Amino acid sequence: MSKVITPMEQDYSQWYNDLVLRSGLADYSAVRGCMVIKPYGYRLWENMRDVLDKMFKDTGHVNAYFPLFVPKSLFEAEEKNAEGFAKECAVVTHYRLKNDPANPGKLMVDPEARLEEELVVRPTSEAIIWNTYKGWIQSYRDLPILVNQWANVVRWEMRTRLFLRTAEFLWQEGHTAHATEQEAREEAAKMLEVYADFVENYMALPVVKGVKSESERFAGAVDTLCIEALMQDGKALQAGTSHFLGQNFAKAFDVKFSDSNNKLEYVWATSWGVSTRLIGALVMAHSDNQGLVLPPKIAPLQVVIVPIYKGDEQLAAITDTLKPIISQLKDLGISVKYDDSEHARPGWKFAEYELQGVPVRMAIGARDLANGVAEIARRDTKEKMTVNLDGIAFYIKTLLDEIQLHLFEKAKNFRAEHTTEANSWDEFVSILDGKGGFVSAHWDGTAETEEKIKDLAKATIRCIPLDAKEEAGTCILTGKPSNKRVLFARAY
Amino acid sequence: MSKVITPMEQDYSQWYNDLVLRSGLADYSAVRGCMVIKPYGYRLWENMRDVLDKMFKDTGHVNAYFPLFVPKSLFEAEEKNAEGFAKECAVVTHYRLKNDPANPGKLMVDPEARLEEELVVRPTSEAIIWNTYKGWIQSYRDLPILVNQWANVVRWEMRTRLFLRTAEFLWQEGHTAHATEQEAREEAAKMLEVYADFVENYMALPVVKGVKSESERFAGAVDTLCIEALMQDGKALQAGTSHFLGQNFAKAFDVKFSDSNNKLEYVWATSWGVSTRLIGALVMAHSDNQGLVLPPKIAPLQVVIVPIYKGDEQLAAITDTLKPIISQLKDLGISVKYDDSEHARPGWKFAEYELQGVPVRMAIGARDLANGVAEIARRDTKEKMTVNLDGIAFYIKTLLDEIQLHLFEKAKNFRAEHTTEANSWDEFVSILDGKGGFVSAHWDGTAETEEKIKDLAKATIRCIPLDAKEEAGTCILTGKPSNKRVLFARAY
Repeated sequence: MSKVITPMEQDYSQWYNDLVLRSGLADYSAVRGCMVIKPYGYRLWENMRDVLDKMFKDTGHVNAYFPLFVPKSLFEAEEKNAEGFAKECAVVTHYRLKNDPANPGKLMVDPEARLEEELVVRPTSEAIIWNTYKGWIQSYRDLPILVNQWANVVRWEMRTRLFLRTAEFLWQEGHTAHATEQEAREEAAKMLEVYADFVENYMALPVVKGVKSESERFAGAVDTLCIEALMQDGKALQAGTSHFLGQNFAKAFDVKFSDSNNKLEYVWATSWGVSTRLIGALVMAHSDNQGLVLPPKIAPLQVVIVPIYKGDEQLAAITDTLKPIISQLKDLGISVKYDDSEHARPGWKFAEYELQGVPVRMAIGARDLANGVAEIARRDTKEKMTVNLDGIAFYIKTLLDEIQLHLFEKAKNFRAEHTTEANSWDEFVSILDGKGGFVSAHWDGTAETEEKIKDLAKATIRCIPLDAKEEAGTCILTGKPSNKRVLFARAY
Repeated sequence: MSKVITPMEQDYSQWYNDLVLRSGLADYSAVRGCMVIKPYGYRLWENMRDVLDKMFKDTGHVNAYFPLFVPKSLFEAEEKNAEGFAKECAVVTHYRLKNDPANPGKLMVDPEARLEEELVVRPTSEAIIWNTYKGWIQSYRDLPILVNQWANVVRWEMRTRLFLRTAEFLWQEGHTAHATEQEAREEAAKMLEVYADFVENYMALPVVKGVKSESERFAGAVDTLCIEALMQDGKALQAGTSHFLGQNFAKAFDVKFSDSNNKLEYVWATSWGVSTRLIGALVMAHSDNQGLVLPPKIAPLQVVIVPIYKGDEQLAAITDTLKPIISQLKDLGISVKYDDSEHARPGWKFAEYELQGVPVRMAIGARDLANGVAEIARRDTKEKMTVNLDGIAFYIKTLLDEIQLHLFEKAKNFRAEHTTEANSWDEFVSILDGKGGFVSAHWDGTAETEEKIKDLAKATIRCIPLDAKEEAGTCILTGKPSNKRVLFARAY
């Protein structure tokens, strides 16, 4: 497969696909809409998962695992949730294949092995989990339940994109149960903060925290909080959601608890999730035409060292000098690879590690060695520096921090340049058709207007920002009064 | 739910179920044969997974993720594999539910949303993975591929038991591709060693390493290596398998590589896996009528400290003294919980932590404090020791190591007492009907005899031990000549 990547200016969408495939993050599979997460992509996911998992545990959550299947009768119990996911779910109807008498060597579904009740492959687990919680909750002493699950889910999407929208994806879903509305609302808000912290400080991607409009709300939620990020093509991407579910699922599954006064009450709920979609966001936000650009804090490999040598003797001298530096880097908690393989020339290696987005590259030749220096190249800015070998491990450690910050600042500046207030419909459309990005505008608050705007301008309300200030204005489309701006964008 | 556990002497099977449910490892679910892994059980699985994952990475493997679904046409490609799993697989036939006009509020499968090709929920992933490897392998330079996957799989078992046999379970499956038969065989053997190392040194469970007879072989394998462990009721349990797959899957999916002489060859394969079934083995091997007994190296919680006090002042004094000890324990890498909750009396707490199998309990009251001592109780032997607070953290660290070893030695002694040579059919049956365990006996090597023995004595060949020595003898059933003993047992 050619390693050439379509330039993003030419075709952003093709650039993205090329990059994901050629950097070895993922591959297409034989199953419609499902992808293979390749080792390099999975390592990235592991790093993201490990950070998030620690954040969840540090905020008092524990992991558990619930069944992949949701019996149809449970699936349909919470009406809105069912309605939201019924249209695109994988349904297991049989539990056996048998030899097909008409086609020797082929199998067919055994009609005698039809399930009494169909099973839905979980598109999300509220139903199966709340049916389980019913057995776990009797009294206020059993609350709160703060459980998270790392799992695969399936949504039969018609148009799929690697990482961004796949029929099967990996995610985590938190499902908590509380004695009071306030506690549940606080939990939903707290987890939104955890997500924002992770996406900003590890993925180096600034986010807007907000609330979804009613029509963009999670099916079955009372309120959906979200974080929204901006990609380099000016389109927005929902990076995580945290739902206050009220008592909807408790009522659907009859989950009550006796409070301290022995009064029976329905339990309050939240759920929250982020998925492998975040990898798509990461690629789209930072990368360039040479390949991935990965934030050091979650990069599968932080530093690569390429020796440039002629003959075994030069290589041995370089290797001897580098050995203590490599162990020093490892001691500093930095992942490092020393690539002295002979199968490729340094230039080929440079291109390969650029493609993979390794944040720092160190190259060292015989002359460098004589001068006691090495060449350090930053993946993000492509700057090259000649650095003294003495103390170079600490130099690299500082540089990795700097790269992390720089990526965040760069993305933040990009977002600032691509967040615009619009005060008329023409202005609104011309921004969207021009530089794109977030458009901050007044909206009359009705689902009808929201739908019309979506039809006319292909833009959706990404969120009502949590920090939106009161401001009198008139709806961009209808001219009706509005008291705060919301954030529109074309979105993934 | 009552915390009383049926004594194992009375009903071993009920003891096991009671224990798994009441210690909070798992719960039944609304889905036939599927279980909920509760937080305590999942934490145990996380600990086991983390150790294994490191072992896999240390032996050069990387993780990846492949689709949950296997299209029927891929599933049936490797004939024996398909035959082995077709009888018990979950089949997705539709991708949508719709409102059922006959039952308002209910959903039904939408007959218009039938998949063109049915999808099997993976019972194992050789088919989908080898179909993918076809695109990854052209030349010997692309080999070996050393990939592992942590995933859920589904096998529609008719008789299920928590952890031991469930329709859905969690596991890891390694799938490697090699240029030569020898390299693949060495890989399969190496991973068996990794499993044996893990099960013996972390789960404290001695295993016999061996090869499966042809009829017990994995469907699609040329050879199945296995580790077999013994439970306290004298029944054996297969704890892990590592398969040499030959070129079966490469041929089924047409995966060839050009070797260094530019000659096209089929690729050689292995696969290997362990699952949440190991948790069942862990429970059955070490626990007692009071609850779980967990090896310190993988226990979710290693040390619990229970203060015994009257009034806040006593509690404060105890807490002050314990604070530095607790941080010292943590610094030593020991997980510790200080349970000063007021909701329960010390006796209740003691029983609870015994049920949960926490390896070491420390109790300390006002008088102990005055004497500068604490009471240490071992979960495994139930011994209690009065120990000086001075240096108690190091004492506990050593004790944890001792408990780990003791559990292994105890299980090893049990196995030695329950491994018997049988030289006649009567002897064979009387051992199985008596103390049970492994029975080492001669077998004529035919599948027919193996099947008869299974019918007559309910015992299967667990394995042909790798270290079985040449020894002339006659088959226990047919009297035909045999040159080595194999290991029989009744098994889970």
